[in-house]
Amino acid sequence: MATFEHELNPGAASIAPVSTMKALVYHRAGNGSHWYAWEDHSVPSIRDPGDAIVRMTTSTICGTDLHILKGDVPSVTDGRILGHEGIGVIEQIGAGVTEFEVGDKVIISCITSCTKCEFCRRGMPSHCRRGGWILGNTIDGTQAEYVRIPHADGSLYPFPAGGDEEALIMLSDILPTAFECGVLNGQVKPGDSIAIVGAGPIGLAVLLTAQFYSPAAIYMIDVDDKRLSVAMRLGATHVINSTDGQSTVHLLELTSGAGVDVAIEAVGIPETIDICQAIVGPGGRIANIGVHGKPVTLHLEQLWDRNIALTTRLVDATSLPMLLKVISSGKLQPNKLVTHRFDLNDIRKAYETFGNASEEGALKVILTNN
Amino acid sequence: MATFEHELNPGAASIAPVSTMKALVYHRAGNGSHWYAWEDHSVPSIRDPGDAIVRMTTSTICGTDLHILKGDVPSVTDGRILGHEGIGVIEQIGAGVTEFEVGDKVIISCITSCTKCEFCRRGMPSHCRRGGWILGNTIDGTQAEYVRIPHADGSLYPFPAGGDEEALIMLSDILPTAFECGVLNGQVKPGDSIAIVGAGPIGLAVLLTAQFYSPAAIYMIDVDDKRLSVAMRLGATHVINSTDGQSTVHLLELTSGAGVDVAIEAVGIPETIDICQAIVGPGGRIANIGVHGKPVTLHLEQLWDRNIALTTRLVDATSLPMLLKVISSGKLQPNKLVTHRFDLNDIRKAYETFGNASEEGALKVILTNN
Amino acid sequence: MATFEHELNPGAASIAPVSTMKALVYHRAGNGSHWYAWEDHSVPSIRDPGDAIVRMTTSTICGTDLHILKGDVPSVTDGRILGHEGIGVIEQIGAGVTEFEVGDKVIISCITSCTKCEFCRRGMPSHCRRGGWILGNTIDGTQAEYVRIPHADGSLYPFPAGGDEEALIMLSDILPTAFECGVLNGQVKPGDSIAIVGAGPIGLAVLLTAQFYSPAAIYMIDVDDKRLSVAMRLGATHVINSTDGQSTVHLLELTSGAGVDVAIEAVGIPETIDICQAIVGPGGRIANIGVHGKPVTLHLEQLWDRNIALTTRLVDATSLPMLLKVISSGKLQPNKLVTHRFDLNDIRKAYETFGNASEEGALKVILTNN
Amino acid sequence: MATFEHELNPGAASIAPVSTMKALVYHRAGNGSHWYAWEDHSVPSIRDPGDAIVRMTTSTICGTDLHILKGDVPSVTDGRILGHEGIGVIEQIGAGVTEFEVGDKVIISCITSCTKCEFCRRGMPSHCRRGGWILGNTIDGTQAEYVRIPHADGSLYPFPAGGDEEALIMLSDILPTAFECGVLNGQVKPGDSIAIVGAGPIGLAVLLTAQFYSPAAIYMIDVDDKRLSVAMRLGATHVINSTDGQSTVHLLELTSGAGVDVAIEAVGIPETIDICQAIVGPGGRIANIGVHGKPVTLHLEQLWDRNIALTTRLVDATSLPMLLKVISSGKLQPNKLVTHRFDLNDIRKAYETFGNASEEGALKVILTNN
Repeated sequence: MATFEHELNPGAASIAPVSTMKALVYHRAGNGSHWYAWEDHSVPSIRDPGDAIVRMTTSTICGTDLHILKGDVPSVTDGRILGHEGIGVIEQIGAGVTEFEVGDKVIISCITSCTKCEFCRRGMPSHCRRGGWILGNTIDGTQAEYVRIPHADGSLYPFPAGGDEEALIMLSDILPTAFECGVLNGQVKPGDSIAIVGAGPIGLAVLLTAQFYSPAAIYMIDVDDKRLSVAMRLGATHVINSTDGQSTVHLLELTSGAGVDVAIEAVGIPETIDICQAIVGPGGRIANIGVHGKPVTLHLEQLWDRNIALTTRLVDATSLPMLLKVISSGKLQPNKLVTHRFDLNDIRKAYETFGNASEEGALKVILTNN
Repeated sequence: MATFEHELNPGAASIAPVSTMKALVYHRAGNGSHWYAWEDHSVPSIRDPGDAIVRMTTSTICGTDLHILKGDVPSVTDGRILGHEGIGVIEQIGAGVTEFEVGDKVIISCITSCTKCEFCRRGMPSHCRRGGWILGNTIDGTQAEYVRIPHADGSLYPFPAGGDEEALIMLSDILPTAFECGVLNGQVKPGDSIAIVGAGPIGLAVLLTAQFYSPAAIYMIDVDDKRLSVAMRLGATHVINSTDGQSTVHLLELTSGAGVDVAIEAVGIPETIDICQAIVGPGGRIANIGVHGKPVTLHLEQLWDRNIALTTRLVDATSLPMLLKVISSGKLQPNKLVTHRFDLNDIRKAYETFGNASEEGALKVILTNN
Repeated sequence: MATFEHELNPGAASIAPVSTMKALVYHRAGNGSHWYAWEDHSVPSIRDPGDAIVRMTTSTICGTDLHILKGDVPSVTDGRILGHEGIGVIEQIGAGVTEFEVGDKVIISCITSCTKCEFCRRGMPSHCRRGGWILGNTIDGTQAEYVRIPHADGSLYPFPAGGDEEALIMLSDILPTAFECGVLNGQVKPGDSIAIVGAGPIGLAVLLTAQFYSPAAIYMIDVDDKRLSVAMRLGATHVINSTDGQSTVHLLELTSGAGVDVAIEAVGIPETIDICQAIVGPGGRIANIGVHGKPVTLHLEQLWDRNIALTTRLVDATSLPMLLKVISSGKLQPNKLVTHRFDLNDIRKAYETFGNASEEGALKVILTNN
Repeated sequence: MATFEHELNPGAASIAPVSTMKALVYHRAGNGSHWYAWEDHSVPSIRDPGDAIVRMTTSTICGTDLHILKGDVPSVTDGRILGHEGIGVIEQIGAGVTEFEVGDKVIISCITSCTKCEFCRRGMPSHCRRGGWILGNTIDGTQAEYVRIPHADGSLYPFPAGGDEEALIMLSDILPTAFECGVLNGQVKPGDSIAIVGAGPIGLAVLLTAQFYSPAAIYMIDVDDKRLSVAMRLGATHVINSTDGQSTVHLLELTSGAGVDVAIEAVGIPETIDICQAIVGPGGRIANIGVHGKPVTLHLEQLWDRNIALTTRLVDATSLPMLLKVISSGKLQPNKLVTHRFDLNDIRKAYETFGNASEEGALKVILTNN
């Protein structure tokens, strides 16, 4: 149905020539209105020697995509293809790609890493000079039939033989984000008591990956009883519905006033950071994951002598290979987060479902491109 | 001039019986006014088997003492002897004291540690169930001729033969505080660029102890040129006078926009925490030392994706033995922080000088009891 | 049946006066022969203010006790009561004990900690100036009706209400030893591949506690198929019978030549250290737990450029409170290690069973004193 | 004097065509004899897109080069150009090089890093799948007028404006090796007592970089009084001549029997590892740097309960950027290690001097190519 203009890329190998494709495109008008469309778009082609062109087989929608559609992420400009998660098959590679070949099935990381700049070499590709979070943000993303992945050697990972795409697409973003920003930064240890504030997909992914370290108690806090009941099934030891504004009181009662060793924020609003500050015990950690749109109040007048740490992090996705090992060993089953499945052509319906998560009981929605 | 009622303490040994002494006593009236007096007070005696009575030879005044005198520390009640720093000689010990003998010269830690509770055993005696910061706070302190030290085995340290009292009294509080809350929490590493916001005694003690780790650049920020010139003498590589409100602009220029690896707050007001947030680079740490009286604004809308950590800590003083080794090796000369010396009987003059630090050029004032 | 001479201990409270008891006593004759006897012994009494006298309710036998009976531990002298593990009830306390009261049920740590010396304060009570491993070694131990515990505040832990004595006695030694010397020193991390060399009680306790950190693969190596089948039940992912001398070949095949991230030695002979050296991958750790009687060969000519660490450790038992939390949460079930139960009066039969572990299929044997 | 065949490398830019050069070439005859020659050799050219051709301006000789010339390193084959240290100017780059341009002055790392394999991404390029230590080993090295550097982006570092070549060439190998394998692996901390066994160039580089962490005592052990007197000038607090075989006795006396916190082995023979085992205190670390040709005896019968760690490491050189910052700040002056200077054409004289280090008082010899 289409052709790669691969004559223009003499160093590139190709197996499936195409020229137009369908893509989920973000639009912004001069009057400030925002919308998206599932529309025709030219198929991407190799621009730099490190590029790979990937034909998408599975993608998904992230909470951040909803933020973009509200206009909250100004770096996303009109005409951008959204999406930073996915699995696919390499169709074309640039001359500089050494780790992959055409035909390889790959997991796409939401973080693009050049592997060479000082941030990549410090293990912090979230701040890569040439990459970081650019897919579906400052360059076209994965909610399309094809995507161009720059710095492919640092940004793609081999899909293991016999793997489950629905499980492994969680490695693109949600699992590394939950694990690195929440669990690692929170320094969850065996025997710890931890609280996770927010039982959405990220909070539940924290719940799954925190159990790598065998905490003794996991308190899950949310306003949605349906999500809290999912949390109980996935390993929470206690759930607290915070609708009454008394979640901190309840938690302190449950911990005999001691508070928790680790409080993980998985929402991104001032109220949830407040909860974390109120429940963290002496010597504890507050690990922020949420994307915040406004400043919060830090109660240093109470916390200055409490020996706590508060951390922030944009995911580096450096834990992806480790997470893959744990999934392969059967000790982590991320497909438990999947609630809905759609054909990629029905992506608008998928967005509606995901955007109405509470009523739909939606966590992660899977988009399949066959 | 006085007598210990040591007949009441059959298990205790004594060498110098006394019964009244002079002490710096905090007073608070019903109308909310605050003052202190250098007045007669009964000499303390052994109450518990773990106690020691120490005859003070050297003490000093802390910025926290000034806060108390303003009424900022409600836990301090009328009639309390102030002071939590000092060196002295043990006059009497309870039957349970095993690490010290009468006649031993000792350094008094500002943190009292029972050594047995779960916090002490976790290495966090700042939150000791029976101790923590209690001297000159909830029990009588060291600005007196004698002081009772509970849990003496965990709260006193042997004064080394040939030691300099003026240097080693800095081990009571200011050096462990600067080192643990600032340098250790900030994770200062060789080659780092660090900023210290506040060039008072604590900030300068951070400057001295940060150099244990060979940072490549140390930016000192303060409003007082006199203190900044002291900082240059003590090892700062750059100083920035923040009077013009442009210190963050200057620092970012000096670091080519990169910001610092570590920003250490040594003042305790919202403005200085603001500076720290503005100058910390991706992956950096903000280490708070200051005692804060009100909440601050945390700019999570800018910091959520910067991979930073912000820490707080009440000093544990667990680094005291290590700091003593470094002083003994000659690699740290804390007496550089001493600017004024007084006889203990002139403590009111010492308070005036210290309370007027900027005009007096005062850093640490030494009080000697001969 | 007996009386405490509590008149001699005026500061001590008592609830159950006794004067003689039964105890398992080690004997050594001038001709070098060794034996033990279940014989009458005077009941211990308070000697120091920090002491507690504990009436044993449950005890057990350690592999180290067998070593003692072979004469391998010269610090144990004729007439010593053996045993360093146990649970019991406090009968008497010295005047300096602050954390416990008469009647408290307690877990006895194999490591005695004064809490005050520099090693205790560094978190390394294994080398406590006044304690360390002394029970059943340089002072009388727990295989008796009563035991004196010096430095009780640092050496006893509260037995939780509703706890299972058979499970919690594993906190005296085997679980902290396996966890600290094996798992912590080996730095087991999620996704790691680890090998445990030796599937005796210690190796199996490593197997249980290593799973706190979700390794992806756990290879268990031993010569005894019965123990290996226990290992499979307790969570090993692979077992290798090393009887054929080819265990390293098998392991390298199973890991595609990569070797393991962590090799944990739980036997104490040169052959098993050899295996660890042969199977550790670049960047890996070898954690020794075994008590070695002779030197081993370290192949630095092969390992100098492999970026490995080899560690040794006498257990500190500082992880005991954390392990208790994990047991209480249900995530660790150490009673799975119990294979035999005896009345304390049948301790000789228990020793025979434990000493013939392979034929008897014995792991931990429980001794109950009712 | 020569021409690059740059017509064969259409993607490569060139500024100075050449075709033959002088190089120090290792030879091995069938009869097992070894020698080297300063002989004509073809100038290297770009083979892979990641290559750079560097015109050497400064190089040096490493102790490892002497080992090669004795035939101790079988991976080095007949005809190999030796040398893995150097500074130079880029003459040509492959099409895939993104971090450097022709004309850039660079520091060459002894470790070649592809930046993409799992070892490079774990921060362990010493075991890079495509690199590691290959220069002057399995591919031609730096003791020549030109050298080809594969994976240039991961293996070269910008030479800073105004830098001193004699100082910065120490970043190629000796400083990262001393720092990473000795100081970092030994976990040198403020206040520690450390021993460095071997006062050759590597041991002295440990001495310089250990001071980044302000140890309180540094014991330097060697058989050569000249080197020990250099050590005193460079910061050792004590020196011990081990010629009498009593160095461990002396050290234990000096430390009142406590031993050291860290023992760093910088020789590579069984005797020096023995010293380290005898002097390390409980809880201490033994950091091996030496290249060992035969197994050593590990005294696990004494060390099993001493809570020590013994580490090995091939340098990763990942600390190079940090070390450069510390040198630039003036806190490290590695040119103190330079004792002799030669023109590159006199490299045979340089080898004689360096090979006869004791009599010549030689540490590092500088080779300049003008």
